[in-house]
Amino acid sequence: MSAASPQEYIADPSHIEARSFELIRQEAQLDHLSRYEQQVAMRVIHSLGMPELAQHLRFSGTACAAGMQALTAQAPILCDAEMVKEGVTKRMISEAPLCFLNHPETPKLAAQHGETRSMAALRQWEPHLEGAVVLIGNAPTALFRLIEMLHGGAAKPALIIGMPVGFVGAAESKQLLWEQHQALGVPCITLLGRIGGSAVTAASCNALLRCIRGELY
Amino acid sequence: MSAASPQEYIADPSHIEARSFELIRQEAQLDHLSRYEQQVAMRVIHSLGMPELAQHLRFSGTACAAGMQALTAQAPILCDAEMVKEGVTKRMISEAPLCFLNHPETPKLAAQHGETRSMAALRQWEPHLEGAVVLIGNAPTALFRLIEMLHGGAAKPALIIGMPVGFVGAAESKQLLWEQHQALGVPCITLLGRIGGSAVTAASCNALLRCIRGELY
Repeated sequence: MSAASPQEYIADPSHIEARSFELIRQEAQLDHLSRYEQQVAMRVIHSLGMPELAQHLRFSGTACAAGMQALTAQAPILCDAEMVKEGVTKRMISEAPLCFLNHPETPKLAAQHGETRSMAALRQWEPHLEGAVVLIGNAPTALFRLIEMLHGGAAKPALIIGMPVGFVGAAESKQLLWEQHQALGVPCITLLGRIGGSAVTAASCNALLRCIRGELY
Repeated sequence: MSAASPQEYIADPSHIEARSFELIRQEAQLDHLSRYEQQVAMRVIHSLGMPELAQHLRFSGTACAAGMQALTAQAPILCDAEMVKEGVTKRMISEAPLCFLNHPETPKLAAQHGETRSMAALRQWEPHLEGAVVLIGNAPTALFRLIEMLHGGAAKPALIIGMPVGFVGAAESKQLLWEQHQALGVPCITLLGRIGGSAVTAASCNALLRCIRGELY
């Protein structure tokens, strides 16, 4: 039989993690990235099992520093989806991330405006946006709406981690973020193309939280 | 500018979903799959934005039927991680899925046995296993441990959706599930290789829940 028998697998968690990141360093192209960017890239790769994701990642120049500074200052973490929120490692944050997708007002607002629930949820981000760390890992419409809000003069987050997933609008919304973040004056980390989701998005935030604590691979 | 301007994107949720599944049908190889298997494959593809995942999916002969029957009977849904649990669409289930990863006993059990928390959490699955729908979307060690438990005579779940992710043990644990499910007498759905995670795992369960409700693309 080609597969390992159940007796042979590695069960020690620190051994599993160390070996995982050793393999990622061997297989992924990371040389073009700075020290902290490499940590983000490795966590993104780890979360989906895909070394090739490194080439689709984009970091604005100050993104990691800005994110680490905001997270150190316990800035609010705003999430577009509950799975993203759930993915942020609890032991490294003092306040739960915010997500308004399942807020009682959200479905009403969405129906009223003929828009997605993800877009409607962002109507409740306004008072929390300034200096926040934004995690968009599900809905392209949330990222489009956030860019609209920023063009309209909304307060600026410290960092946008924008990695929505899918076949309609995901690649386009991330391309738009990457092209316009400088004009908007907001640092960003994104993963160009269709691939994305809650795992890569939360992993990016977790990587920054680990960098702050000196937990680097 | 190559990207769509913020004004041009599709904001109508039913339009987004219909167009997404139209594109998936065009791009993915689904002809070798049955009607319900195609629905699972399309939701898996949708959750990561990757049409090529269809070729790595494996379904045992009765997997979709067994899962749909168990879910219709409101069998317990057992999850290895909170993100998987969070990913199951709430409106389609009457009882919350079970996850013991953050149970107060779990870290103690893990330290005591020198194993991952994911493995320790499975020690609390025993009374719920019979006829359950099992979702393993994070930890290879959870899938290895479940296979061990089944070899040891544990009660049989109705279906295992086994799609853990990563560089150490993920591909091996899924290969082992695929090779041994028949001998163990348990239907399964898996995604061979390193790619996996909470999104594809929850999407598979959600696809079966939608099939039950006749929500097919």
